[in-house]
Amino acid sequence: MPERTRIPKPAARRLSLYLRTVQDRLEQEGASDRVSSRELGEAAGVADAQVRKDLASFGAGGQPGVGYRIRDLHEGLRRALGLQQPWRAILVGAGNIGRALLAYPRFAQEGFEIVAVLDRDGGVVGRKIAGHAVQSMNQLSEVVRRSGAQLGVIAVPPDEAQAVGEMLVSAGIRGILNFAPRSLRLTRPVPVVGVDFTEALERLAFEVTAIRPASGRGRSGG
Amino acid sequence: MPERTRIPKPAARRLSLYLRTVQDRLEQEGASDRVSSRELGEAAGVADAQVRKDLASFGAGGQPGVGYRIRDLHEGLRRALGLQQPWRAILVGAGNIGRALLAYPRFAQEGFEIVAVLDRDGGVVGRKIAGHAVQSMNQLSEVVRRSGAQLGVIAVPPDEAQAVGEMLVSAGIRGILNFAPRSLRLTRPVPVVGVDFTEALERLAFEVTAIRPASGRGRSGG
Repeated sequence: MPERTRIPKPAARRLSLYLRTVQDRLEQEGASDRVSSRELGEAAGVADAQVRKDLASFGAGGQPGVGYRIRDLHEGLRRALGLQQPWRAILVGAGNIGRALLAYPRFAQEGFEIVAVLDRDGGVVGRKIAGHAVQSMNQLSEVVRRSGAQLGVIAVPPDEAQAVGEMLVSAGIRGILNFAPRSLRLTRPVPVVGVDFTEALERLAFEVTAIRPASGRGRSGG
Repeated sequence: MPERTRIPKPAARRLSLYLRTVQDRLEQEGASDRVSSRELGEAAGVADAQVRKDLASFGAGGQPGVGYRIRDLHEGLRRALGLQQPWRAILVGAGNIGRALLAYPRFAQEGFEIVAVLDRDGGVVGRKIAGHAVQSMNQLSEVVRRSGAQLGVIAVPPDEAQAVGEMLVSAGIRGILNFAPRSLRLTRPVPVVGVDFTEALERLAFEVTAIRPASGRGRSGG
């Protein structure tokens, strides 16, 4: 019997946002042990009715006027998102983004572990970064096999991303987080989630432009 | 007369993805000067009919069987996204994420310029990073005023993000790109776009779990 039901992708994104709120609350000293659908909806930018529907999809029940128990919701959200198992990732690229990821506070809390760091630059191979001796790209298949890593993180310059992506899937990696601003065309397709900083800045520019009044400081009409 | 019509947020996200494809093509030597709605849709994960509708929303017309002219589409997409003007941003936090952003190849191409870098760490203030002398947080208002920066980028540890966010809006910043995995509650709300690496990893874990066969190596049934 499958352990989790199929949840559509946009819902997965919302669950991820609810999980963030629940974790913030777990970390707050002296906070209430309940959270309302209204609070969760405000943080995620959706209506409470949508929150209740999303949470009901994996069996979380809240009490009207009392809300959801934070600890139960945390557990339920993690299970729904596939986080009840530990995830091992190898990181390719020991530059600034790679280093930032190695120091990222939330990965370990969420059950994501970066188990190895590789780089093609001979000058970096062998150095220790955040406790990991950087390994050579020649060792990729062996590192994946020995570590049992399921995920790969690409943090190399854009023009190297495609080749690294192919190497990762050849080595048996089942999903890729791609920080290079370049789409991958993989011969054996695996899920790829891209993190593109420019896209985020574009969204911001768009939102700032959208709220600016058309002329002067007048209120928007109509 | 307003220079741009209001485009809904999810469409803005798709336009951003089309722009990425168009830019990839502009950079390819010897590539065709046309792109089809099918190609744009494949890269963005949407149907061609949706692509044609999105592009028509800002007046871009393609010819059946011939496609859209790359250069016209590039210009039209940039205008629709509010990128026809230059955007100046100040960066708070000179750590690994900040350094990665300063070296990010696409920002300049897109018209985003990081005009100043600030940090609260006295040990970093005064040092040069990617051509910028890091300035003290005390100088924030002055830096914003003098530089004419419209956007702020938060690349500080999570527990400092809220205070930095408040300082940015007090200094007159009109939009924030937040790399700290913490939501901001601003007394004077401005658009905030968060980039949360954990959320990206969660989406990946979700997708990898979703495609895994329920048992053994059998094909998925029904």
